[in-house]
Amino acid sequence: MSDRLILHEQMESGNCYKIRLTAALLEMPIELREYDITKGETRTPEFMRTVNANGRIPTLQVGDRFITESNAACYYLAQGTPLVPEDRFEHADMLRWMFWEQYSHEPNIATLRFWLCWVDIENLTDVQRLQIPLKRDAGNAALKLMDEHLNGREWLVGNHLTLADVCLFAYTHVADAGGFELGRYRNVTAWIERVRAQPNFLAIEG
Amino acid sequence: MSDRLILHEQMESGNCYKIRLTAALLEMPIELREYDITKGETRTPEFMRTVNANGRIPTLQVGDRFITESNAACYYLAQGTPLVPEDRFEHADMLRWMFWEQYSHEPNIATLRFWLCWVDIENLTDVQRLQIPLKRDAGNAALKLMDEHLNGREWLVGNHLTLADVCLFAYTHVADAGGFELGRYRNVTAWIERVRAQPNFLAIEG
Repeated sequence: MSDRLILHEQMESGNCYKIRLTAALLEMPIELREYDITKGETRTPEFMRTVNANGRIPTLQVGDRFITESNAACYYLAQGTPLVPEDRFEHADMLRWMFWEQYSHEPNIATLRFWLCWVDIENLTDVQRLQIPLKRDAGNAALKLMDEHLNGREWLVGNHLTLADVCLFAYTHVADAGGFELGRYRNVTAWIERVRAQPNFLAIEG
Repeated sequence: MSDRLILHEQMESGNCYKIRLTAALLEMPIELREYDITKGETRTPEFMRTVNANGRIPTLQVGDRFITESNAACYYLAQGTPLVPEDRFEHADMLRWMFWEQYSHEPNIATLRFWLCWVDIENLTDVQRLQIPLKRDAGNAALKLMDEHLNGREWLVGNHLTLADVCLFAYTHVADAGGFELGRYRNVTAWIERVRAQPNFLAIEG
Protein backbone atom coordinates (compact mmCIF):
# COMPACT_ATOMS: atom_id res chain seq x y z
CA MET A 1 0.00 0.00 0.00
CA SER A 2 1.98 2.99 -1.24
CA ASP A 3 -0.76 5.62 -1.13
CA ARG A 4 -0.42 8.30 1.52
CA LEU A 5 -2.99 7.82 4.31
CA ILE A 6 -4.69 10.86 5.86
CA LEU A 7 -7.39 10.53 8.49
CA HIS A 8 -9.90 13.39 8.63
CA GLU A 9 -11.08 13.13 12.21
CA GLN A 10 -11.86 14.49 15.64
CA MET A 11 -9.70 13.02 18.39
CA GLU A 12 -12.50 12.38 20.93
CA SER A 13 -14.72 10.47 18.49
CA GLY A 14 -14.65 6.72 19.07
CA ASN A 15 -15.38 6.16 15.38
CA CYS A 16 -12.21 8.10 14.52
CA TYR A 17 -10.24 6.40 17.29
CA LYS A 18 -11.00 2.94 15.85
CA ILE A 19 -9.07 3.84 12.73
CA ARG A 20 -6.13 5.36 14.65
CA LEU A 21 -6.04 2.26 16.86
CA THR A 22 -6.12 -0.09 13.85
CA ALA A 23 -3.25 1.83 12.23
CA ALA A 24 -1.29 1.85 15.52
CA LEU A 25 -1.70 -1.90 16.09
CA LEU A 26 -0.52 -2.50 12.52
CA GLU A 27 2.29 0.08 12.82
CA MET A 28 0.99 1.94 9.76
CA PRO A 29 1.89 5.62 9.53
CA ILE A 30 -1.18 7.82 9.16
CA GLU A 31 -1.47 11.62 9.05
CA LEU A 32 -4.22 13.31 11.06
CA ARG A 33 -6.39 16.32 10.15
CA GLU A 34 -8.50 17.55 13.05
CA TYR A 35 -12.02 19.01 12.76
CA ASP A 36 -14.47 20.22 15.42
CA ILE A 37 -17.89 18.79 14.66
CA THR A 38 -19.52 20.93 17.36
CA LYS A 39 -18.48 23.96 15.28
CA GLY A 40 -19.88 22.45 12.07
CA GLU A 41 -16.45 22.06 10.50
CA THR A 42 -17.53 18.88 8.68
CA ARG A 43 -20.72 20.44 7.31
CA THR A 44 -19.08 23.17 5.28
CA PRO A 45 -19.63 23.11 1.49
CA GLU A 46 -15.85 22.71 1.10
CA PHE A 47 -15.71 19.61 3.33
CA MET A 48 -18.82 18.07 1.76
CA ARG A 49 -17.49 18.69 -1.75
CA THR A 50 -13.95 17.45 -1.24
CA VAL A 51 -13.99 14.96 1.64
CA ASN A 52 -17.43 13.47 2.42
CA ALA A 53 -20.79 14.41 0.89
CA ASN A 54 -22.40 12.93 4.02
CA GLY A 55 -20.71 15.65 6.13
CA ARG A 56 -19.23 13.22 8.61
CA ILE A 57 -15.95 12.17 10.07
CA PRO A 58 -14.02 9.95 10.15
CA THR A 59 -13.05 9.86 6.52
CA LEU A 60 -9.90 8.03 5.50
CA GLN A 61 -8.10 9.55 2.56
CA VAL A 62 -6.08 7.08 0.49
CA GLY A 63 -4.08 9.09 -2.03
CA ASP A 64 -6.79 11.14 -3.72
CA ARG A 65 -9.66 8.78 -2.85
CA PHE A 66 -11.83 8.71 0.27
CA ILE A 67 -13.32 5.97 2.45
CA THR A 68 -16.13 6.97 4.77
CA GLU A 69 -17.73 4.82 7.51
CA SER A 70 -15.30 3.99 10.29
CA ASN A 71 -15.58 0.22 10.09
CA ALA A 72 -15.00 0.20 6.33
CA ALA A 73 -11.87 2.33 6.84
CA CYS A 74 -10.58 -0.08 9.52
CA TYR A 75 -11.16 -2.98 7.13
CA TYR A 76 -9.24 -1.21 4.37
CA LEU A 77 -6.23 -0.78 6.64
CA ALA A 78 -6.37 -4.30 8.11
CA GLN A 79 -7.12 -6.37 5.01
CA GLY A 80 -4.54 -9.15 4.68
CA THR A 81 -3.35 -8.85 8.31
CA PRO A 82 -4.16 -11.10 11.30
CA LEU A 83 -6.83 -8.56 12.39
CA VAL A 84 -9.04 -9.98 9.59
CA PRO A 85 -9.65 -13.76 9.92
CA GLU A 86 -9.04 -15.88 6.83
CA ASP A 87 -11.62 -18.50 7.76
CA ARG A 88 -14.87 -17.77 5.94
CA PHE A 89 -17.17 -18.27 8.93
CA GLU A 90 -14.95 -16.32 11.33
CA HIS A 91 -14.68 -13.53 8.78
CA ALA A 92 -18.47 -13.25 8.54
CA ASP A 93 -18.67 -13.45 12.33
CA MET A 94 -16.24 -10.52 12.59
CA LEU A 95 -18.41 -8.51 10.19
CA ARG A 96 -21.47 -9.49 12.24
CA TRP A 97 -19.99 -7.75 15.30
CA MET A 98 -18.97 -4.73 13.23
CA PHE A 99 -22.49 -4.30 11.77
CA TRP A 100 -24.00 -4.93 15.20
CA GLU A 101 -21.71 -2.23 16.62
CA GLN A 102 -23.07 0.33 14.17
CA TYR A 103 -26.71 -0.69 14.60
CA SER A 104 -27.17 -1.77 18.22
CA HIS A 105 -24.21 -0.37 20.17
CA GLU A 106 -22.97 2.94 18.76
CA PRO A 107 -26.40 4.67 18.36
CA ASN A 108 -27.02 4.05 22.07
CA ILE A 109 -23.68 4.06 23.87
CA ALA A 110 -21.81 6.59 21.74
CA THR A 111 -24.83 8.84 21.35
CA LEU A 112 -25.41 9.12 25.11
CA ARG A 113 -21.71 9.95 25.62
CA PHE A 114 -21.97 12.64 22.94
CA TRP A 115 -25.21 14.07 24.30
CA LEU A 116 -24.07 14.12 27.92
CA CYS A 117 -20.41 15.17 27.45
CA TRP A 118 -20.47 17.39 24.37
CA VAL A 119 -23.97 18.67 23.66
CA ASP A 120 -24.88 18.90 27.38
CA ILE A 121 -28.24 17.73 28.67
CA GLU A 122 -29.61 21.27 28.84
CA ASN A 123 -29.07 21.77 25.13
CA LEU A 124 -30.85 18.59 24.05
CA THR A 125 -34.14 18.78 22.18
CA ASP A 126 -37.27 17.35 23.79
CA VAL A 127 -37.24 14.30 21.54
CA GLN A 128 -33.58 13.67 22.38
CA ARG A 129 -34.32 13.92 26.11
CA LEU A 130 -37.20 11.45 25.74
CA GLN A 131 -34.87 9.01 24.02
CA ILE A 132 -32.36 8.93 26.91
CA PRO A 133 -34.05 6.11 28.88
CA LEU A 134 -34.58 4.09 25.69
CA LYS A 135 -30.94 4.48 24.69
CA ARG A 136 -29.91 3.68 28.26
CA ASP A 137 -31.84 0.38 28.15
CA ALA A 138 -30.66 -0.51 24.65
CA GLY A 139 -27.05 0.34 25.54
CA ASN A 140 -27.19 -1.84 28.64
CA ALA A 141 -28.72 -4.65 26.56
CA ALA A 142 -25.78 -4.33 24.15
CA LEU A 143 -23.22 -4.45 26.97
CA LYS A 144 -25.02 -7.46 28.49
CA LEU A 145 -24.96 -9.29 25.16
CA MET A 146 -21.21 -8.66 24.85
CA ASP A 147 -20.67 -9.71 28.46
CA GLU A 148 -22.50 -13.00 27.98
CA HIS A 149 -20.69 -13.69 24.73
CA LEU A 150 -17.30 -13.02 26.39
CA ASN A 151 -18.04 -15.48 29.19
CA GLY A 152 -15.26 -18.05 28.74
CA ARG A 153 -13.91 -16.29 25.65
CA GLU A 154 -10.89 -13.99 25.37
CA TRP A 155 -11.92 -12.33 22.11
CA LEU A 156 -15.19 -11.70 20.31
CA VAL A 157 -14.30 -13.92 17.33
CA GLY A 158 -12.08 -17.01 17.37
CA ASN A 159 -8.92 -17.05 19.47
CA HIS A 160 -7.26 -13.82 18.41
CA LEU A 161 -7.78 -10.08 18.44
CA THR A 162 -9.71 -9.07 15.31
CA LEU A 163 -11.29 -5.89 13.98
CA ALA A 164 -14.45 -6.91 15.87
CA ASP A 165 -12.56 -6.25 19.13
CA VAL A 166 -10.94 -3.05 17.87
CA CYS A 167 -14.21 -1.58 16.58
CA LEU A 168 -16.19 -2.49 19.71
CA PHE A 169 -13.43 -1.39 22.09
CA ALA A 170 -13.65 2.20 20.87
CA TYR A 171 -16.96 3.20 22.45
CA THR A 172 -17.20 0.40 25.02
CA HIS A 173 -14.15 1.43 27.05
CA VAL A 174 -15.43 5.01 27.42
CA ALA A 175 -19.07 4.03 28.05
CA ASP A 176 -18.78 5.39 31.62
CA ALA A 177 -18.74 8.88 30.10
CA GLY A 178 -22.25 8.20 28.77
CA GLY A 179 -23.45 7.13 32.21
CA PHE A 180 -23.06 3.36 31.78
CA GLU A 181 -21.69 1.36 34.72
CA LEU A 182 -19.01 -0.80 33.13
CA GLY A 183 -18.30 -2.44 36.49
CA ARG A 184 -21.55 -4.41 36.06
CA TYR A 185 -19.99 -6.22 33.10
CA ARG A 186 -17.05 -8.24 34.42
CA ASN A 187 -16.24 -10.11 31.22
CA VAL A 188 -16.32 -6.84 29.29
CA THR A 189 -13.98 -5.09 31.73
CA ALA A 190 -11.53 -8.04 31.58
CA TRP A 191 -11.66 -7.92 27.77
CA ILE A 192 -10.98 -4.15 27.85
CA GLU A 193 -7.79 -4.84 29.80
CA ARG A 194 -6.77 -7.51 27.27
CA VAL A 195 -7.15 -5.01 24.43
CA ARG A 196 -5.16 -2.40 26.39
CA ALA A 197 -2.34 -4.92 26.87
CA GLN A 198 -1.84 -5.44 23.12
CA PRO A 199 1.54 -4.44 21.65
CA ASN A 200 1.38 -0.96 20.06
CA PHE A 201 -1.91 -0.15 21.82
CA LEU A 202 -2.85 3.52 21.52
CA ALA A 203 -5.10 5.34 24.02
CA ILE A 204 -8.07 7.36 22.68
CA GLU A 205 -6.45 10.70 23.46
CA GLY A 206 -2.89 9.37 23.06
CA MET B 1 -19.69 -24.71 0.75
CA SER B 2 -21.29 -28.02 1.71
CA ASP B 3 -23.08 -26.94 4.89
CA ARG B 4 -26.84 -26.80 4.68
CA LEU B 5 -28.11 -23.18 4.63
CA ILE B 6 -31.24 -22.25 6.56
CA LEU B 7 -32.52 -18.68 6.75
CA HIS B 8 -34.53 -17.84 9.86
CA GLU B 9 -36.59 -14.93 8.60
CA GLN B 10 -39.80 -13.02 8.02
CA MET B 11 -40.68 -12.60 4.35
CA GLU B 12 -41.64 -8.88 4.50
CA SER B 13 -38.43 -7.79 6.23
CA GLY B 14 -35.99 -6.08 3.87
CA ASN B 15 -33.10 -7.30 6.00
CA CYS B 16 -34.24 -10.89 5.41
CA TYR B 17 -34.95 -10.23 1.74
CA LYS B 18 -31.34 -9.09 1.15
CA ILE B 19 -30.15 -12.56 2.02
CA ARG B 20 -32.77 -14.33 -0.11
CA LEU B 21 -31.90 -12.00 -3.00
CA THR B 22 -28.16 -12.65 -2.61
CA ALA B 23 -28.79 -16.42 -2.60
CA ALA B 24 -31.10 -16.14 -5.63
CA LEU B 25 -28.64 -14.06 -7.67
CA LEU B 26 -25.94 -16.63 -6.88
CA GLU B 27 -28.31 -19.57 -7.49
CA MET B 28 -27.59 -20.97 -4.02
CA PRO B 29 -30.28 -23.19 -2.51
CA ILE B 30 -31.43 -21.94 0.87
CA GLU B 31 -34.18 -23.24 3.16
CA LEU B 32 -36.55 -20.76 4.80
CA ARG B 33 -38.03 -20.79 8.30
CA GLU B 34 -40.68 -18.12 8.82
CA TYR B 35 -41.31 -16.20 12.07
CA ASP B 36 -43.76 -13.42 12.91
CA ILE B 37 -41.90 -10.70 14.80
CA THR B 38 -45.13 -8.86 15.58
CA LYS B 39 -46.14 -11.94 17.62
CA GLY B 40 -42.79 -12.02 19.45
CA GLU B 41 -41.75 -15.28 17.81
CA THR B 42 -38.08 -14.22 17.78
CA ARG B 43 -38.09 -13.16 21.44
CA THR B 44 -38.96 -16.55 22.91
CA PRO B 45 -36.38 -18.14 25.25
CA GLU B 46 -36.12 -21.03 22.75
CA PHE B 47 -35.28 -18.73 19.83
CA MET B 48 -32.84 -16.65 21.87
CA ARG B 49 -31.10 -19.76 23.19
CA THR B 50 -30.81 -21.68 19.94
CA VAL B 51 -30.81 -19.13 17.10
CA ASN B 52 -29.92 -15.56 18.15
CA ALA B 53 -29.35 -14.23 21.67
CA ASN B 54 -30.14 -10.77 20.28
CA GLY B 55 -33.73 -11.95 19.50
CA ARG B 56 -33.63 -10.78 15.92
CA ILE B 57 -34.07 -12.04 12.42
CA PRO B 58 -32.61 -12.58 9.91
CA THR B 59 -30.25 -15.23 11.18
CA LEU B 60 -28.47 -17.43 8.65
CA GLN B 61 -27.82 -20.96 9.85
CA VAL B 62 -24.77 -22.62 8.30
CA GLY B 63 -24.80 -26.25 9.40
CA ASP B 64 -25.01 -25.91 13.19
CA ARG B 65 -23.58 -22.38 13.34
CA PHE B 66 -25.39 -19.07 13.05
CA ILE B 67 -24.64 -15.71 11.41
CA THR B 68 -26.68 -12.74 12.57
CA GLU B 69 -26.74 -9.25 11.01
CA SER B 70 -28.13 -9.25 7.49
CA ASN B 71 -25.16 -7.70 5.75
CA ALA B 72 -22.71 -10.14 7.36
CA ALA B 73 -24.91 -13.03 6.18
CA CYS B 74 -24.95 -11.62 2.62
CA TYR B 75 -21.17 -11.35 2.71
CA TYR B 76 -20.85 -14.97 3.87
CA LEU B 77 -22.90 -16.17 0.90
CA ALA B 78 -21.23 -13.92 -1.66
CA GLN B 79 -17.57 -14.21 -0.63
CA GLY B 80 -15.50 -15.26 -3.64
CA THR B 81 -18.19 -14.32 -6.19
CA PRO B 82 -18.40 -11.25 -8.46
CA LEU B 83 -20.79 -9.64 -5.92
CA VAL B 84 -17.71 -8.92 -3.75
CA PRO B 85 -15.05 -6.83 -5.54
CA GLU B 86 -11.47 -8.12 -5.45
CA ASP B 87 -9.90 -4.67 -5.65
CA ARG B 88 -8.99 -3.49 -2.16
CA PHE B 89 -10.38 0.02 -2.51
CA GLU B 90 -13.60 -1.11 -4.21
CA HIS B 91 -14.05 -3.76 -1.53
CA ALA B 92 -13.79 -1.14 1.23
CA ASP B 93 -16.11 1.12 -0.75
CA MET B 94 -18.68 -1.70 -0.91
CA LEU B 95 -18.42 -2.14 2.87
CA ARG B 96 -18.78 1.63 3.26
CA TRP B 97 -22.22 1.50 1.60
CA MET B 98 -23.21 -1.55 3.65
CA PHE B 99 -22.28 0.14 6.96
CA TRP B 100 -23.95 3.35 5.80
CA GLU B 101 -27.09 1.36 4.99
CA GLN B 102 -27.29 0.07 8.56
CA TYR B 103 -26.49 3.43 10.17
CA SER B 104 -28.03 6.14 7.97
CA HIS B 105 -30.61 4.41 5.75
CA GLU B 106 -32.27 1.44 7.48
CA PRO B 107 -33.01 3.15 10.84
CA ASN B 108 -34.94 5.83 8.96
CA ILE B 109 -36.40 4.29 5.81
CA ALA B 110 -37.05 0.77 7.09
CA THR B 111 -38.24 1.95 10.47
CA LEU B 112 -40.87 4.29 9.00
CA ARG B 113 -42.13 1.47 6.75
CA PHE B 114 -42.35 -0.82 9.79
CA TRP B 115 -44.06 1.78 11.96
CA LEU B 116 -46.56 2.85 9.31
CA CYS B 117 -47.35 -0.55 7.73
CA TRP B 118 -46.99 -3.03 10.60
CA VAL B 119 -47.19 -1.27 13.96
CA ASP B 120 -49.73 1.31 12.70
CA ILE B 121 -49.43 4.98 13.60
CA GLU B 122 -52.10 4.73 16.32
CA ASN B 123 -50.06 2.15 18.20
CA LEU B 124 -46.82 4.12 18.23
CA THR B 125 -45.46 5.51 21.48
CA ASP B 126 -45.19 9.27 21.91
CA VAL B 127 -41.45 9.23 21.45
CA GLN B 128 -41.82 7.18 18.26
CA ARG B 129 -44.39 9.63 16.91
CA LEU B 130 -42.07 12.55 17.68
CA GLN B 131 -39.30 10.84 15.74
CA ILE B 132 -41.33 10.53 12.53
CA PRO B 133 -40.38 13.95 11.07
CA LEU B 134 -36.73 13.42 12.04
CA LYS B 135 -36.67 10.01 10.37
CA ARG B 136 -38.50 11.46 7.37
CA ASP B 137 -35.79 14.12 6.93
CA ALA B 138 -32.92 11.71 7.54
CA GLY B 139 -34.43 9.15 5.15
CA ASN B 140 -34.82 11.77 2.42
CA ALA B 141 -31.23 12.88 3.03
CA ALA B 142 -30.12 9.26 2.55
CA LEU B 143 -32.09 8.91 -0.69
CA LYS B 144 -30.69 12.23 -1.93
CA LEU B 145 -27.14 11.10 -1.18
CA MET B 146 -27.72 7.87 -3.16
CA ASP B 147 -29.35 9.82 -5.98
CA GLU B 148 -26.42 12.21 -6.29
CA HIS B 149 -23.92 9.38 -6.12
CA LEU B 150 -25.78 7.47 -8.87
CA ASN B 151 -25.72 10.47 -11.19
CA GLY B 152 -23.72 9.14 -14.15
CA ARG B 153 -23.12 5.79 -12.46
CA GLU B 154 -24.90 2.48 -13.07
CA TRP B 155 -23.94 0.86 -9.77
CA LEU B 156 -22.94 2.11 -6.33
CA VAL B 157 -19.40 0.70 -6.53
CA GLY B 158 -17.29 0.24 -9.65
CA ASN B 159 -18.89 -0.98 -12.85
CA HIS B 160 -20.76 -4.05 -11.65
CA LEU B 161 -23.54 -5.09 -9.33
CA THR B 162 -22.09 -5.70 -5.85
CA LEU B 163 -23.47 -6.45 -2.40
CA ALA B 164 -23.68 -2.68 -1.89
CA ASP B 165 -26.47 -2.60 -4.49
CA VAL B 166 -28.18 -5.74 -3.17
CA CYS B 167 -28.17 -4.53 0.44
CA LEU B 168 -29.38 -1.03 -0.41
CA PHE B 169 -31.98 -2.24 -2.89
CA ALA B 170 -33.86 -4.13 -0.16
CA TYR B 171 -35.37 -1.17 1.70
CA THR B 172 -34.95 1.46 -1.01
CA HIS B 173 -37.29 -0.14 -3.54
CA VAL B 174 -40.13 -0.36 -0.97
CA ALA B 175 -39.50 3.08 0.56
CA ASP B 176 -42.88 4.26 -0.80
CA ALA B 177 -44.52 2.07 1.87
CA GLY B 178 -42.83 4.25 4.50
CA GLY B 179 -44.20 7.40 2.89
CA PHE B 180 -41.13 8.34 0.84
CA GLU B 181 -41.66 9.65 -2.69
CA LEU B 182 -39.22 7.63 -4.77
CA GLY B 183 -40.25 9.53 -7.91
CA ARG B 184 -38.22 12.51 -6.60
CA TYR B 185 -35.05 10.46 -7.02
CA ARG B 186 -34.65 9.73 -10.74
CA ASN B 187 -31.22 8.14 -10.57
CA VAL B 188 -32.40 5.89 -7.74
CA THR B 189 -35.50 4.76 -9.63
CA ALA B 190 -33.40 3.99 -12.74
CA TRP B 191 -30.97 1.99 -10.56
CA ILE B 192 -33.90 0.07 -9.03
CA GLU B 193 -34.92 -1.01 -12.53
CA ARG B 194 -31.35 -2.11 -13.29
CA VAL B 195 -31.33 -4.31 -10.20
CA ARG B 196 -34.73 -5.76 -11.13
CA ALA B 197 -33.40 -6.64 -14.60
CA GLN B 198 -30.59 -8.83 -13.21
CA PRO B 199 -30.63 -12.55 -14.12
CA ASN B 200 -32.20 -14.62 -11.30
CA PHE B 201 -33.69 -11.52 -9.65
CA LEU B 202 -36.17 -12.38 -6.90
CA ALA B 203 -38.98 -10.05 -5.77
CA ILE B 204 -39.39 -9.33 -2.05
CA GLU B 205 -42.53 -11.42 -1.73
CA GLY B 206 -41.57 -13.79 -4.54
